[in-house]
Amino acid sequence: MTVTDELLANNADYASTFDGPLPLPPSKHVAVVACMDARLDVYRILGLHDGEAHVIRNAGGVITDDEIRSLAISQQLLGTTEIILIHHTDCGMLTFTDDGFKADLQKEIGVKPAWSAESFSDLDDDVRQSIRRIENSPFVTKTTSLRGFVFDVATGRLNEVTA
Amino acid sequence: MTVTDELLANNADYASTFDGPLPLPPSKHVAVVACMDARLDVYRILGLHDGEAHVIRNAGGVITDDEIRSLAISQQLLGTTEIILIHHTDCGMLTFTDDGFKADLQKEIGVKPAWSAESFSDLDDDVRQSIRRIENSPFVTKTTSLRGFVFDVATGRLNEVTA
Repeated sequence: MTVTDELLANNADYASTFDGPLPLPPSKHVAVVACMDARLDVYRILGLHDGEAHVIRNAGGVITDDEIRSLAISQQLLGTTEIILIHHTDCGMLTFTDDGFKADLQKEIGVKPAWSAESFSDLDDDVRQSIRRIENSPFVTKTTSLRGFVFDVATGRLNEVTA
Repeated sequence: MTVTDELLANNADYASTFDGPLPLPPSKHVAVVACMDARLDVYRILGLHDGEAHVIRNAGGVITDDEIRSLAISQQLLGTTEIILIHHTDCGMLTFTDDGFKADLQKEIGVKPAWSAESFSDLDDDVRQSIRRIENSPFVTKTTSLRGFVFDVATGRLNEVTA
């Protein structure tokens, strides 16, 4: 039995008490962009309930074209206006360099990715970089609030990154 | 007061009973790729606990270069081997076309995105497409299980997409 099978059994329990369906647009008009890290249960960290916020996640919680795509769809078609960015302490992205990661992949499989791995060496600086990438995109046009935070995996607390 | 302020107040509650820190690598060696939809509380849907799985999310739960980047980092550096893909019924991505979305953006702001919006017209087909994109990437090399599902927003149940 795989872990996937085990999680599907959990889903049967979840469905047995499920209360749905809710409307499609996020009722709190918020989109969150967070790291994929396993310790970030975004709904619990922010006290979100079903149907309230879009949640976008990737390695690092960084902003690339795909997050711009998701944010553009979120704002243009589904009415979100606030954006919350979440990086976190003890992040895997702090443990390697793009050059090193690509060289390792090339060594193992013979092919070097054309994309950037988006590693970073300073959490606050990368949150600021993510804010600037959103501010510089012409496609994210409805933003009324854009704030970035570092989640502390030791305390559970979000600490705001100031400009 | 913004919604962001309200969610930060929730975070103070969360931190007051927080139990951490946990280790960085996902203890169940699983990565989930799911849609950003507000009704998908991925941890609850799969019965996941803190520290168990990477969670990657975007508009549609599709696979682009950024999800390949995240999966490559997840597998190469943090030891995940199983992948679970989650699309869902009543998805916003079913309600528009790439051409229409890009034309609307161009009309509003004068600039047409160079990226694809990744809309789709059939849920099961797009799950299969996502599976194929992962299978075709040279950078996701440690996969022992790769399965795709459609989450039913009316019942809470995950229905597997078969090849």
